[in-house]
Amino acid sequence: MRLGVCYYPEHWSASMWKDDAARMKALGIDRVRIAEFAWSRIEPSPGEYQWDWLDQAIDTLADAGLKVVMCTPTATPPKWLIDRHPDILPIGADGRPRAFGSRRHYDFSSPSYFEASQKICTAVAKRYGKHPAVAFWQTDNEYGCHNTVVSYSPAALQRFRAWLKQRYATIDALNTAWGTVFWSMEYRNFDEIDLPVATVTEAHPSHRLDFRRFSSDEVVRFNRMQTDIIRAHSPERPVAHNFMQLFTEFDHYKVAADLDIATWDSYPLGALEEQWFDPSIKAKWLRTGHPDFASFNHDVYRGMSKLPFWVMEQQPGPVNWAHWNPAPLPGMVKLWSWEAFAHGAGCVSYFRWRQAPFAQEQMHAGLNTPDNQLDLGGEEASLVAKEIDRVVTEDGELPVAAKVALVWDYEAKWLFEIHPQGVDFHYPRFAFEYYSALRSLGLDVDIVPADAPLDKYKLIVVPPLPVVPDDFAARLAASGAQVVLGPRTGSKTQNLTIPDALPPGAELAQLIPMRVWRVESMRPNVTEKVGQRGESRHWRDLIEAGEGVQIESNFADGHPAILRHGSIRYLASLFDDALTQSIFQDAAKAAGLDAEPLPEGIRISRRGPLTYLFNYNSTAHRITDAASFIVGQEEVEPQGVAIYKANNTHQ
Amino acid sequence: MRLGVCYYPEHWSASMWKDDAARMKALGIDRVRIAEFAWSRIEPSPGEYQWDWLDQAIDTLADAGLKVVMCTPTATPPKWLIDRHPDILPIGADGRPRAFGSRRHYDFSSPSYFEASQKICTAVAKRYGKHPAVAFWQTDNEYGCHNTVVSYSPAALQRFRAWLKQRYATIDALNTAWGTVFWSMEYRNFDEIDLPVATVTEAHPSHRLDFRRFSSDEVVRFNRMQTDIIRAHSPERPVAHNFMQLFTEFDHYKVAADLDIATWDSYPLGALEEQWFDPSIKAKWLRTGHPDFASFNHDVYRGMSKLPFWVMEQQPGPVNWAHWNPAPLPGMVKLWSWEAFAHGAGCVSYFRWRQAPFAQEQMHAGLNTPDNQLDLGGEEASLVAKEIDRVVTEDGELPVAAKVALVWDYEAKWLFEIHPQGVDFHYPRFAFEYYSALRSLGLDVDIVPADAPLDKYKLIVVPPLPVVPDDFAARLAASGAQVVLGPRTGSKTQNLTIPDALPPGAELAQLIPMRVWRVESMRPNVTEKVGQRGESRHWRDLIEAGEGVQIESNFADGHPAILRHGSIRYLASLFDDALTQSIFQDAAKAAGLDAEPLPEGIRISRRGPLTYLFNYNSTAHRITDAASFIVGQEEVEPQGVAIYKANNTHQ
Amino acid sequence: MRLGVCYYPEHWSASMWKDDAARMKALGIDRVRIAEFAWSRIEPSPGEYQWDWLDQAIDTLADAGLKVVMCTPTATPPKWLIDRHPDILPIGADGRPRAFGSRRHYDFSSPSYFEASQKICTAVAKRYGKHPAVAFWQTDNEYGCHNTVVSYSPAALQRFRAWLKQRYATIDALNTAWGTVFWSMEYRNFDEIDLPVATVTEAHPSHRLDFRRFSSDEVVRFNRMQTDIIRAHSPERPVAHNFMQLFTEFDHYKVAADLDIATWDSYPLGALEEQWFDPSIKAKWLRTGHPDFASFNHDVYRGMSKLPFWVMEQQPGPVNWAHWNPAPLPGMVKLWSWEAFAHGAGCVSYFRWRQAPFAQEQMHAGLNTPDNQLDLGGEEASLVAKEIDRVVTEDGELPVAAKVALVWDYEAKWLFEIHPQGVDFHYPRFAFEYYSALRSLGLDVDIVPADAPLDKYKLIVVPPLPVVPDDFAARLAASGAQVVLGPRTGSKTQNLTIPDALPPGAELAQLIPMRVWRVESMRPNVTEKVGQRGESRHWRDLIEAGEGVQIESNFADGHPAILRHGSIRYLASLFDDALTQSIFQDAAKAAGLDAEPLPEGIRISRRGPLTYLFNYNSTAHRITDAASFIVGQEEVEPQGVAIYKANNTHQ
Repeated sequence: MRLGVCYYPEHWSASMWKDDAARMKALGIDRVRIAEFAWSRIEPSPGEYQWDWLDQAIDTLADAGLKVVMCTPTATPPKWLIDRHPDILPIGADGRPRAFGSRRHYDFSSPSYFEASQKICTAVAKRYGKHPAVAFWQTDNEYGCHNTVVSYSPAALQRFRAWLKQRYATIDALNTAWGTVFWSMEYRNFDEIDLPVATVTEAHPSHRLDFRRFSSDEVVRFNRMQTDIIRAHSPERPVAHNFMQLFTEFDHYKVAADLDIATWDSYPLGALEEQWFDPSIKAKWLRTGHPDFASFNHDVYRGMSKLPFWVMEQQPGPVNWAHWNPAPLPGMVKLWSWEAFAHGAGCVSYFRWRQAPFAQEQMHAGLNTPDNQLDLGGEEASLVAKEIDRVVTEDGELPVAAKVALVWDYEAKWLFEIHPQGVDFHYPRFAFEYYSALRSLGLDVDIVPADAPLDKYKLIVVPPLPVVPDDFAARLAASGAQVVLGPRTGSKTQNLTIPDALPPGAELAQLIPMRVWRVESMRPNVTEKVGQRGESRHWRDLIEAGEGVQIESNFADGHPAILRHGSIRYLASLFDDALTQSIFQDAAKAAGLDAEPLPEGIRISRRGPLTYLFNYNSTAHRITDAASFIVGQEEVEPQGVAIYKANNTHQ
Repeated sequence: MRLGVCYYPEHWSASMWKDDAARMKALGIDRVRIAEFAWSRIEPSPGEYQWDWLDQAIDTLADAGLKVVMCTPTATPPKWLIDRHPDILPIGADGRPRAFGSRRHYDFSSPSYFEASQKICTAVAKRYGKHPAVAFWQTDNEYGCHNTVVSYSPAALQRFRAWLKQRYATIDALNTAWGTVFWSMEYRNFDEIDLPVATVTEAHPSHRLDFRRFSSDEVVRFNRMQTDIIRAHSPERPVAHNFMQLFTEFDHYKVAADLDIATWDSYPLGALEEQWFDPSIKAKWLRTGHPDFASFNHDVYRGMSKLPFWVMEQQPGPVNWAHWNPAPLPGMVKLWSWEAFAHGAGCVSYFRWRQAPFAQEQMHAGLNTPDNQLDLGGEEASLVAKEIDRVVTEDGELPVAAKVALVWDYEAKWLFEIHPQGVDFHYPRFAFEYYSALRSLGLDVDIVPADAPLDKYKLIVVPPLPVVPDDFAARLAASGAQVVLGPRTGSKTQNLTIPDALPPGAELAQLIPMRVWRVESMRPNVTEKVGQRGESRHWRDLIEAGEGVQIESNFADGHPAILRHGSIRYLASLFDDALTQSIFQDAAKAAGLDAEPLPEGIRISRRGPLTYLFNYNSTAHRITDAASFIVGQEEVEPQGVAIYKANNTHQ
Repeated sequence: MRLGVCYYPEHWSASMWKDDAARMKALGIDRVRIAEFAWSRIEPSPGEYQWDWLDQAIDTLADAGLKVVMCTPTATPPKWLIDRHPDILPIGADGRPRAFGSRRHYDFSSPSYFEASQKICTAVAKRYGKHPAVAFWQTDNEYGCHNTVVSYSPAALQRFRAWLKQRYATIDALNTAWGTVFWSMEYRNFDEIDLPVATVTEAHPSHRLDFRRFSSDEVVRFNRMQTDIIRAHSPERPVAHNFMQLFTEFDHYKVAADLDIATWDSYPLGALEEQWFDPSIKAKWLRTGHPDFASFNHDVYRGMSKLPFWVMEQQPGPVNWAHWNPAPLPGMVKLWSWEAFAHGAGCVSYFRWRQAPFAQEQMHAGLNTPDNQLDLGGEEASLVAKEIDRVVTEDGELPVAAKVALVWDYEAKWLFEIHPQGVDFHYPRFAFEYYSALRSLGLDVDIVPADAPLDKYKLIVVPPLPVVPDDFAARLAASGAQVVLGPRTGSKTQNLTIPDALPPGAELAQLIPMRVWRVESMRPNVTEKVGQRGESRHWRDLIEAGEGVQIESNFADGHPAILRHGSIRYLASLFDDALTQSIFQDAAKAAGLDAEPLPEGIRISRRGPLTYLFNYNSTAHRITDAASFIVGQEEVEPQGVAIYKANNTHQ
């Protein structure tokens, strides 16, 4: 079995635990995550640990044959700790401490908190590190949630100055790298440098970008402290962290490098409501989520996980935290679960076993209602449990074997946010739109960092990537793949300055000779025609094309819109969905890939010999290429899933 | 005569007072409210009282035969007091003091201010408590205006902790009641509890709700201090406070319990502009106000007033404080005045006698222009004065005898604001829409608290009421009335947790067997069909109906939308206006009430033998059921009023 | 030659300077502005001046035959100075210092900064005051940019109290003038007065207006300190400051009175994006700017400049600071340059020589790209340079001889912002719309202060002017001109109170007998018909017209909309563009001026014998009245310019 659940024994009478465990097991669940918010129960007063209840809870789960995912409780330091060390509280951009009374009220740079966290992690790891039922670990919970990566504290300032000194060695080097001569911002020593906040107008962009890098590195350091402690006291157990959906405020690749399993928390309906999508899109996929949203995240976390990635928290019904919280359509919990496995998940764990009747999340559904009836999500989870062994037998747990890579980068998000030039230049949106265009062509996609090996891909798609690694062009060329570069690629150096030879920089310009001599950003009610093929939005690179470069389409005013030099394409703008799809289809076909547009709302994934088909629509879909079905049948009901062997192979 | 006016002798040369008084009297006014902002003139320096000017002003009014409504001046502490006791200033959610320089710059919890207020109230009450012309008192002015109920001060924190200790006795009881085990928010003693502000993400909802209750209680305590002082020094004079329109930030029922007269300040055009109404509605009723807005407030304050309620401030022309400030159409000042009397008002008092040419409100019209010409509002007031005795003779000042009750609750507003689940779940809007549907059927409505006796009603309408009193279901049942319960009724316990048996809670579920097993909130561009009858918006309760419950309409996806069990109806959502009206019409008819839709913009009220008809439209309306007219005639002009005996009686 | 450029030698290797200078000269540039942000290079540590590099830079420019516009560097105090005197930082309305790290991080009232500025200005003025190549001076840079006129600092408070004491002499006089009796806001002495910020509701409007006046005077005082120093050490060199486009936060007339040249920084595309224009207008003129925007500013600054005004910074391509930053269409840089000269400019100076590849403005275009290629803007500047001598020969540098005056006032902006009555009553917008209507009739316009001599004008247009000088009515009458007064003119006294006789005040009411007895503001989706002629928006004065006043049009409800008494017109509202144009055309014709509507997007200016025609459209325009062409020909291309002698003269 590969299903899990998040469980909070401390929320319920101990008299309920045994029955809970038995019902979990009966439902088909075998992994139970616990204790990530239980610090005040583990250590109700300074140094007074109370293990009894937790011992009993773990033993109860173990007795039912369940494995435990044990957590460190550092996401919620208790009140007594805050009162002893008020410097734990993070400082907001307004200069005020962010108070106790919810969660994540800690500053990654606080020395007090680092020490207190070492202590509690050590205590927990020692206590349960070798418990036979403790099979996995999770560090903390959702690093960065509620905008907590960055803190403007004295501790952060002190560590930032040291970080800068480490990076630049001398203040002259920093002044030169940033270009502080502009507006007389030059520093005479590292101690003159402040945090980039509350300035009269925008702070220096290089200063801001380095502060974001520093803040991200503080998360890495904090997490590594925890993984080191866990590994010391709990050998052989994989260590995970539960990342968030489309979250970009720290470099997930760096944190994941210290983990065994990258996991993520999947709430497709809340995400749809809170992200950039137009109101019409939000209405259209209201109760299903966007057909590519969970997949995008699956592919992000699969790419950075050493062992198969997990969904650590799977939405089982309505959530409580979006502006509006609709209920998933019947079938969606099952569909989402299967979609995770189709993308290579090692486990899908539902959040939470039972809806809590109190506190902030009391309106967040669970597999069971607060009056302990099995809810719709629980029923669908049990259906998945019943089908899963059949599928594992057939697909042999073969890895996803994507031929298409999409480059995904965290610094790009920070850089474009700091230095947008057009206020709606939202990197995750554009990366997602590229991904969605690929998925709408039926392509499986690996999402990879810019420094990943690229040899195994036939098509490499690069959403706007301002800073490219030194050897990026070389690796692209060596791959032999068809390449599509988005606008603004190579537009900045590491220090957030313009490359000497102008974008896309000397190295990429060797692959596709061109020079971006001017750019413009466009307000939402302005678009530009691209030949007869479609429209562009948001942005234009105005390009002087070099020798041998083929202009595949021009804008109406004659500037090149789509350029190609052999297998390298450069897109001067962000295009409408149909045009983006058409360009990617051309590139995929040039790469020898099978790429035909799927009907709207239909998505497929392939794993080993199996095709997984997901119907996000509210009308049935008929499958015409199936040889045999493992799950479902030819007529796929609304919100239905089919898993089958096709009678001809694609790709 | 039952007309009044607000007057500021301190704003004008004493040489004008006598003429002002004579002109008031001549206009038909007999009550004059004074001195609510005059502290700096009464006590220009600490302890140095200057009574002469005020003695003279009161005597001048008395000499003209006018009665005085005397005010305590605590809404505007003078600068010298603030400089001596800076802790008087309330503290904003941003942690900063809210400065001197406008009004209401005081913290209800400040001990310094409580003491200073006792002193000035005592001085004023002693001086004028037995003056023969002082016939009424007003405490302070518009408690809570400009968001001043809540203060995040050290004084508030200290008193809040004591309030919690009083409520919960032990910290364990509080931890259990709130559910602080969630996210390790447990407290070890009351001194560990902070104010629920500036937290990383939302603070604990039970914590927030209790803080709102505490803050409301602080207003009650402050007002009671004043009423005690006034009653001690000025026996027999009724004490009032002027509440605000649709204001919900403290529990008005509790404050009113210490008053003799509940009065309110009626500014229909400003209200329309500032409240939730759509821009098209704001344009439609631009210069009349919404046809149900003043009425709603009349019925709210009538319900909590021991003596007949007053309009203490009546808009006489354009105001200054809304985002845009249009002028009332000719006739509206008269219409609004008559509407108040139709709903049982004891007095309508215009704000203000003469437009002041200086300071913040210089653009707020009065009955007279700044150059002392009678303005349009003044002319219309004089028309009312001329007609009023005729009507009083006819209606015998009989009470409004409504057969319909609408439950209106202050905690509901706070709870849904703190814990909305759908961001636009705005309780006052939904209560108003229910009221408006009833009024559009020609029904007179009592607005009552949830703990009111319900015996005399034939129809009881309950807008979303999350927390129901223990005996609420029993009283509903005992009333024998037709009952309509809105969605989310009974959805929470006193402590803001989910009831054990799920909503609507065990007691209500005995009246109408059902269980709300899931809910969903819907964004504004999403609606759901309700059978063929209409559409629902904002919210859906997904309901498992119990035995004997009749599903009157389903949503398109089959979930019950309108449920009925005998005389108890439950609405699973908020419906469009027409559907709401239709449901209420069914219920009214089942209750034996006459309920037919009125033409748009036409409203009627009944008091004793008289029917009052108000024409909010810009076209004339023809009355067809009149036997004889006291005011007006069959053809009611745009913005016109008619008062008549009908040739057949309704209800 | 009359072209200049902004240059930052400190941003580039000294090895590039000589070539830069030579290329400037070759392009047709002869004036180079330098050093306004170079403090950290001039004085890298306290008291350690480094002049060598700047000596060399100036000499290099001089050697190439270029004149230098030398700047004081006070817009960017270096970090060491801030660390020594943290009180230099301005304090925001939130009470927090605005930090180092960008620019303009100083408080005009800081004594430390005043002294430090005296010192650096003296050092620079002494060093270069008599250098033969230093031909002009600029004080500081863009006073007020990034909302820096107002600071809520202790230093500002202290100086504000002294300023008030100077203005009112006694506290009684202040109390009376403001009307502090309202809401008990009376003060006992000047030390009780705070800054008008953070009050519970709006602070007293007279208090706020005086604080704005004070803050403006602080800018005047700071600038005068600099001009005094420069004049002492650099005789005969004209002193300038570079004002901003449509910037209104201080009284530019008062600052300009201490200068020889008023210059401004022209960024038509950024302005269009950031100002009040509707999205459709922003899209329409996306890459040209609004046809009247640069002209409006030219006419503002021409009016206050003793020597011919300059454009100190001319947009040469996309900028970086607007929400979206489109590229100008080809031809626009040339068009904008010629437009400046048509309005009487003495110099057009491009910003900047070369796009900097680092720091905040790295995306701001220059005449050259960062890789030192001449950019499109550079090419167009060189075209202007080639044509300019021809034109100077022909127009003899004759002054613009406008017969139309438009009154433009800074306090009006502050007053309506403080005391709007309708939240979108945006003075600059309405003044601009009046200006635009005049320009669309082909009229040349002088923009003048309310206290300007008016004798030479035939038509005087007064956008809403709340406070009129005592002799304003007399000067209007004496001018013999046709006069159009906008709504709200004369509606307030100097102290921001209502005039005794109601608006427009006794003096104006002698010119046009009338009384504004009521006003109303209207939300954006409400308009009122004006006879059959058009529609009004935003505002209505409800007017009692006096004897002899002709009502030229009424609103649909009968109130007067357009009133005339002889040559004096009063407009009771703000009308649609066509109606405004029609009223101004009537008035212009009555004044004997030739005033016919131009085609949309076409604008003309006249200087001496020449007509300048500008085509903002993307279609060609044919000129039919040309006798001979100096620049261009009959067929004016899109974004083209023609300069010609007409075969008949207008005006």
